Amino acid sequence: MKLLALDTATEACSAALLSGDTVYERHDIAPRRHAELILPMVDGVLTEAGLGLNDLDAIAFGRGPGAFTGVRIAAGVTQGLALGAGLPVIPVSSLAALAQPALGKAAVVLPAIDARMGEVYWAAYESDQDGLATALAGEKVASPDAVQAPSTGKIFGVGSGWGTYRERLERILEGQIGGIDPDRFPLAKDMLPLAVREYSSGRYVSAEQALPVYLRDNVVKQG
Amino acid sequence: MKLLALDTATEACSAALLSGDTVYERHDIAPRRHAELILPMVDGVLTEAGLGLNDLDAIAFGRGPGAFTGVRIAAGVTQGLALGAGLPVIPVSSLAALAQPALGKAAVVLPAIDARMGEVYWAAYESDQDGLATALAGEKVASPDAVQAPSTGKIFGVGSGWGTYRERLERILEGQIGGIDPDRFPLAKDMLPLAVREYSSGRYVSAEQALPVYLRDNVVKQG
Repeated sequence: MKLLALDTATEACSAALLSGDTVYERHDIAPRRHAELILPMVDGVLTEAGLGLNDLDAIAFGRGPGAFTGVRIAAGVTQGLALGAGLPVIPVSSLAALAQPALGKAAVVLPAIDARMGEVYWAAYESDQDGLATALAGEKVASPDAVQAPSTGKIFGVGSGWGTYRERLERILEGQIGGIDPDRFPLAKDMLPLAVREYSSGRYVSAEQALPVYLRDNVVKQG
Repeated sequence: MKLLALDTATEACSAALLSGDTVYERHDIAPRRHAELILPMVDGVLTEAGLGLNDLDAIAFGRGPGAFTGVRIAAGVTQGLALGAGLPVIPVSSLAALAQPALGKAAVVLPAIDARMGEVYWAAYESDQDGLATALAGEKVASPDAVQAPSTGKIFGVGSGWGTYRERLERILEGQIGGIDPDRFPLAKDMLPLAVREYSSGRYVSAEQALPVYLRDNVVKQG
């Protein structure tokens, strides 16, 4: 299978390409430079793999939750790429992508992304039999004090929400935390295995449906 | 010449296609729905014209100044479309697009877009010999009280800045105003003649260089 993934939902900007068993990847932490970095990254992985867009089976993108403008950049680029090449689109959760590489570090992985305004985007995942992140608790935007453990087992916390609100999350999840990695961001390469699962299950959409997911309805737009 | 133009820089969302002498067009005033509307509009004009992306010579987009997220949506979609089809990109000023249909209503057309935070994006244009908007004063972001007439002739004011700050602009440009149209937005169809001029002059860029222009450096990003 040949699959392109791209993500600009947080401070990180990344693209990855799966071709058979090989993964090609680019990423950078560059808030506010996503619009200028993402396409050279896409171009870079395609060139490295010796593939064109028409060789792909589908395009995956980080559909949020995440930064308002960032998720729209990724959605926009994906819409354009997918329309041009006539490819299906696989929206992938930024929280699932964040959880994926941390699976196995505890029974439950609890990704949290700093959502500003005193809130975090969070969800809880466990590993399925194929080693892929499976949701235990749906995606929410909430005060860190409202984060709830889905079970009594150990939790591994990952993402910027754990950096900003470490003490409050430790207090609310007292005794359950088996480790944290607050410096990790969702990356396109971690979306690839999740996107393969979605594609295999027929969960893909047309270019026009490559839309962001925010969780928050009352986002204030900047002029 | 075959040229696609798209714009989401303001409350308006629009796409237009020039094929020879025929223009196909879609537009809607739908703030916050740009991400879901723009691609169906692009698809719509292409289908109506019976053309595919590979038939085009170039893609033009409204590169701002305008709403932070809006200009990034248009840039993202344009990047994706242009990379896929291997097409050059023509960035078009939102202010020039706003001025274009008002040329001839006075010696000088002064478009102003509400930039929030008490400011407007503005510039001044006259018509060149081909009836195309030519800048008399560069694009600025400023308090409406700092808007300056480029000459002593009559001015036609156009755009949302003239709605929000009508009285202040009338005071500062006292006696020079020959008419205003505060309800007009930049539209893709008005970018087409400007884009043809740019393309003919070799002023186009590669997909990766389809980047927004903001004027304002200190925009606060929303989470």
